[in-house]
Amino acid sequence: MQDAKTLYQRFNNDLSNLDFGQNPQRLYDPVYYSLGVGGKRIRPILCLMACELFGSNYEDGINAAIGIEIFHNFTLLHDDMMDKADVRRGKPAVHVKWNENIALLSGDAMSVIAYKYICETKSNLRQVLEVFSDTALKICEGQQYDMDFETMSEVSEKQYLLMINLKTAVLLAASLKIGAIIAGANEKDKKNIYEFGENLGMAFQLQDDLLDTFGDPDVFGKNIGGDIVANKKTYLLIKALETADTKQKKELNNWLSLKTFDPIDKVHSIKYIYQNLGIPEFSEQLMNQYFDKAFAKFDQINEKIFNKSILYNYALSLKQRDF
Amino acid sequence: MQDAKTLYQRFNNDLSNLDFGQNPQRLYDPVYYSLGVGGKRIRPILCLMACELFGSNYEDGINAAIGIEIFHNFTLLHDDMMDKADVRRGKPAVHVKWNENIALLSGDAMSVIAYKYICETKSNLRQVLEVFSDTALKICEGQQYDMDFETMSEVSEKQYLLMINLKTAVLLAASLKIGAIIAGANEKDKKNIYEFGENLGMAFQLQDDLLDTFGDPDVFGKNIGGDIVANKKTYLLIKALETADTKQKKELNNWLSLKTFDPIDKVHSIKYIYQNLGIPEFSEQLMNQYFDKAFAKFDQINEKIFNKSILYNYALSLKQRDF
Repeated sequence: MQDAKTLYQRFNNDLSNLDFGQNPQRLYDPVYYSLGVGGKRIRPILCLMACELFGSNYEDGINAAIGIEIFHNFTLLHDDMMDKADVRRGKPAVHVKWNENIALLSGDAMSVIAYKYICETKSNLRQVLEVFSDTALKICEGQQYDMDFETMSEVSEKQYLLMINLKTAVLLAASLKIGAIIAGANEKDKKNIYEFGENLGMAFQLQDDLLDTFGDPDVFGKNIGGDIVANKKTYLLIKALETADTKQKKELNNWLSLKTFDPIDKVHSIKYIYQNLGIPEFSEQLMNQYFDKAFAKFDQINEKIFNKSILYNYALSLKQRDF
Repeated sequence: MQDAKTLYQRFNNDLSNLDFGQNPQRLYDPVYYSLGVGGKRIRPILCLMACELFGSNYEDGINAAIGIEIFHNFTLLHDDMMDKADVRRGKPAVHVKWNENIALLSGDAMSVIAYKYICETKSNLRQVLEVFSDTALKICEGQQYDMDFETMSEVSEKQYLLMINLKTAVLLAASLKIGAIIAGANEKDKKNIYEFGENLGMAFQLQDDLLDTFGDPDVFGKNIGGDIVANKKTYLLIKALETADTKQKKELNNWLSLKTFDPIDKVHSIKYIYQNLGIPEFSEQLMNQYFDKAFAKFDQINEKIFNKSILYNYALSLKQRDF
């Protein structure tokens, strides 16, 4: 079994050597661009680790891993259009670098290319495709809920958790399960590794929300407070609105309603309310509950501890990330 | 074997009973809406006819036929966004009835749903998926070329024919070939039925361009002259610019450059130039060449004439259509 660093390098190398097509240029250039701006490659690494954990190898899993990563980047590309987010990983988003029509169509092409790679999977293809398509549709559902939240005055914690489950968690879960399917794992192990990934994904998203507001700006790589500026209904905001007293609620709602404001001032003020309410602690607590559930599911996977350690260490590194 | 009318009714009935999902509503409502506004259902009918022609039955082909029709409607939905076309089959386009984000995301969901149905195909799934994905990607390429043409001062006949091949013809071809693959047709027949469909598709698109300008407004169902108003680089315009004398070319280019104009006046004037240049005749000639090639390929298909007659008659009805 290969460790995360080796898989990351090997995967990136393979990805950068792929030839999807060349003409028309304005269709394919954004595809290479999107995949070239980097990322942690968490989903393909999980897929490949699961594949190796259950006794198969890199070569058997690589096409599915590539398909999953391309699909993930396709969703980011279209999400950035919908969210009017102009920057992705420090570079201009496709709809900014080119235009909206190009972003729309090259995204569509990426989703087809993703399927092309998934379909190159040699073993248990039908099962792989079933999990992949179900997950792809759930991701669309999650994104729609996320957009619906923008115009809702109140979003419950339960609604929020369903949204991040669909938008983020199920793809991490599916990446692992697809690796396990390819390797021919048994039903119980497939279920456990899926639930490990699902809980890991929930924790991962809660952590992302937390880092967006309380991360170290030099390490996190995005502007701290972006969610606050955009009034994004994150766990932090939902929990704050739920626990705030009348005065704090009024102040929060006032910031949310302002059309013009000093962003630094807004971030500072809302962070201050969050801290007074103990929101970072609430958030960390819930996040750790999901990490604990994830590791409990992981313990039930019926493979040798020695083999499991690589995936375990990788999940642990995600838990300890600050970027 | 069932005739076109029976297949049309049966297919529409099956399509209208499908359950893709319900929540979030704003994701799924546009999917039902898009598929419910009708259409000729040419692609699924071709797929099912090919399936039956080579000895298989409706049940074996229906999932692929549904997947193809959903994919086709997904491309229309996103194309309407890119072209800023507000009406589709006499009803408001999804991005008008809802909004751009909803149209973008429900289109994405439709492409996944299309794959879900394709993947329900029981026989020769890998081959079916290969043809389907290759075709889906070609359709994206065709749409990109079509958009590229908008900003190009000159488009050659050759470039135009490549564009409609990718954007329209290959999906008709693939629909037939997928039906043939499902039924286990031999390599030669699969090739012939593909080329039959490809040439039929070329003829079909040339006919569409012709009807858009010279069709009977009471029968065609769209506003006559829409392509002229929008400066669309159709075969008619490309051929006219190629064959016009200096005076006619100047007049054409003048109309193309006007930012404000009376649409009726513009349509009337450009139609007049087309007629003087014999463009409808050029266009019909080329269209008939493609129909002839299509039927020549059809003749080579190694099945009993009696069985072939239903598909033959259907293709003939497309040739004779005036809507």
